[in-house]
Amino acid sequence: MPAPRSDADWLAAAARLAARGRPLSRPNPAVGCLIVREGRVVGRGWTREGGRPHAEAAALEQAGDRARGADVYVTLEPCAHLSQRGPACADLLADAAPARVVIGCEDPDPRTAGEGIARLRAAGIAVSLVPLPAVEDSLAGYLTRARFGRPHVTLKLAMSLDGCVALANGESRWITGEAARAHVHASRARADAILVGGETWRADKPRLDVRVPGLGERSPKRVLLSRGVAPDGVKVINSPGAIARLDDVQYLYVEGGAETGASFLAADLVDRLEIYRAPIVIGDGLRAVGGIGLEALALAHGRWTLVEEARLGSDRFAAYRRTRQGET
Amino acid sequence: MPAPRSDADWLAAAARLAARGRPLSRPNPAVGCLIVREGRVVGRGWTREGGRPHAEAAALEQAGDRARGADVYVTLEPCAHLSQRGPACADLLADAAPARVVIGCEDPDPRTAGEGIARLRAAGIAVSLVPLPAVEDSLAGYLTRARFGRPHVTLKLAMSLDGCVALANGESRWITGEAARAHVHASRARADAILVGGETWRADKPRLDVRVPGLGERSPKRVLLSRGVAPDGVKVINSPGAIARLDDVQYLYVEGGAETGASFLAADLVDRLEIYRAPIVIGDGLRAVGGIGLEALALAHGRWTLVEEARLGSDRFAAYRRTRQGET
Repeated sequence: MPAPRSDADWLAAAARLAARGRPLSRPNPAVGCLIVREGRVVGRGWTREGGRPHAEAAALEQAGDRARGADVYVTLEPCAHLSQRGPACADLLADAAPARVVIGCEDPDPRTAGEGIARLRAAGIAVSLVPLPAVEDSLAGYLTRARFGRPHVTLKLAMSLDGCVALANGESRWITGEAARAHVHASRARADAILVGGETWRADKPRLDVRVPGLGERSPKRVLLSRGVAPDGVKVINSPGAIARLDDVQYLYVEGGAETGASFLAADLVDRLEIYRAPIVIGDGLRAVGGIGLEALALAHGRWTLVEEARLGSDRFAAYRRTRQGET
Repeated sequence: MPAPRSDADWLAAAARLAARGRPLSRPNPAVGCLIVREGRVVGRGWTREGGRPHAEAAALEQAGDRARGADVYVTLEPCAHLSQRGPACADLLADAAPARVVIGCEDPDPRTAGEGIARLRAAGIAVSLVPLPAVEDSLAGYLTRARFGRPHVTLKLAMSLDGCVALANGESRWITGEAARAHVHASRARADAILVGGETWRADKPRLDVRVPGLGERSPKRVLLSRGVAPDGVKVINSPGAIARLDDVQYLYVEGGAETGASFLAADLVDRLEIYRAPIVIGDGLRAVGGIGLEALALAHGRWTLVEEARLGSDRFAAYRRTRQGET
């Protein structure tokens, strides 16, 4: 890969760095920061476990004196509010005196919202805001909470070419192959919580854990959509809208079944669809998605944009983003 | 594109040339031929309407004396049998005296089957057989007839992400966009016949014609899978297996509905699946494929190989080949 050059390239690199912070940065957003001097990275940081240190603090620590006069690339506006857990990053940056700070996304937190940028400018630092889809994606959990007061929801579907998740008799092992299943485990590891419906819970007794070597300790919280009683160690909600109360969850990964996925789709609470498709035809098997109350085809169009594709063995992965007004 | 160099490259180019002959070459296979001298094409030919002239005859006509000592690339073994419609291509080639003939596929026609190659070698011409999937694909209709005594069958499905072809109330206009529909019309133009089920015929009164500028006259025959009476100008068959009797059809394009597609899949009579997928979710709509009698998931695997993908506006096209023993 050639060295990144443009502001957008550096910010995209900072967004990739930010991904290291997900999901352990919670309750803080996973932010990435690069400090660049004469085209070379002299400091890099991302939000650490539990939210501290912040990405900027870590990158400044690494850069030391080399931050003076350098370019700082940070995915989210540096925080401006005081905290008992450490100084505001806007102040840290003002002290370090870089020539320029390039920011991917303004912080919607009312304690910062523009104040971080103002404080940097007051210190004589040039500030650019360069909005970028890759940065927005890297902050999706945080931004969804700020905009809609709920976690970011990914609905995962693993299906045949003709949209089935099992034979009519319920046989569902396996639709997809090993590479696709490993990909699912990696996605689980990036979620704060995994949700399934009561029927899937009872039928499959899913472990909902993360089976990735070295990531076992990252198994996310388990949430059940059900009107029944909560099993041990599992949180129960009785409607999709109740996810707003999952306070410490930025990223929710919904695994099924078909009626649970449909209830989230019907409530328009799915932000990202992740589809694993095996090259098999099943016919009259169990459907991937139940009724979503769609009244006319025209209403189905324009909602989903393909944002990612991958080959996983003989399976295909495709991710679609729900396009909502006001989003890039 | 860089100039082709290897035997396989030249044969693949000949296979692309052969596509010009489809479907109007019927009842003959659509063959392509390139004559190359010092890296330059001096003759090109493909099977013309009604099967004559053959690709080799056309290419030799163009090359004239330059064929002597040249390399000839032809997708199918040159015919060795005499016909009232013209001399055998093996004899024409022997007279033209190229240095070498490179052949993509041996002719299964018992009147030729190896005899074309033998006759070329007897004339002192070097002959190479270079089997190639692209060449096999270009002869699929002819080879399927020779191997299985029936036309090559493509099943087309246009569906939502979750495998629906319509809302539950039957609304199906439109799932896919204009680019996908234009692609379908181009595929119809390459078929000898289009088949739908009786229910689709009655519900949609499909015109099943080709709406591609300049290709209107290529509208293929229309075939109905039904136990009812044949409408005017339409051939009726009462089971998928009866396609064997569609003597003049090399390429059959099956358009639906779900039960018709399923009956072909259940009979293992689908050679190619062409799926158009729109980025929409429907939920509990009408399914793309009906029951195919699948008894275990393990039996569904290993049958389909992705061979082609394309973006068509916001839709996706994917073609899968049925992998059968003995095929490349």
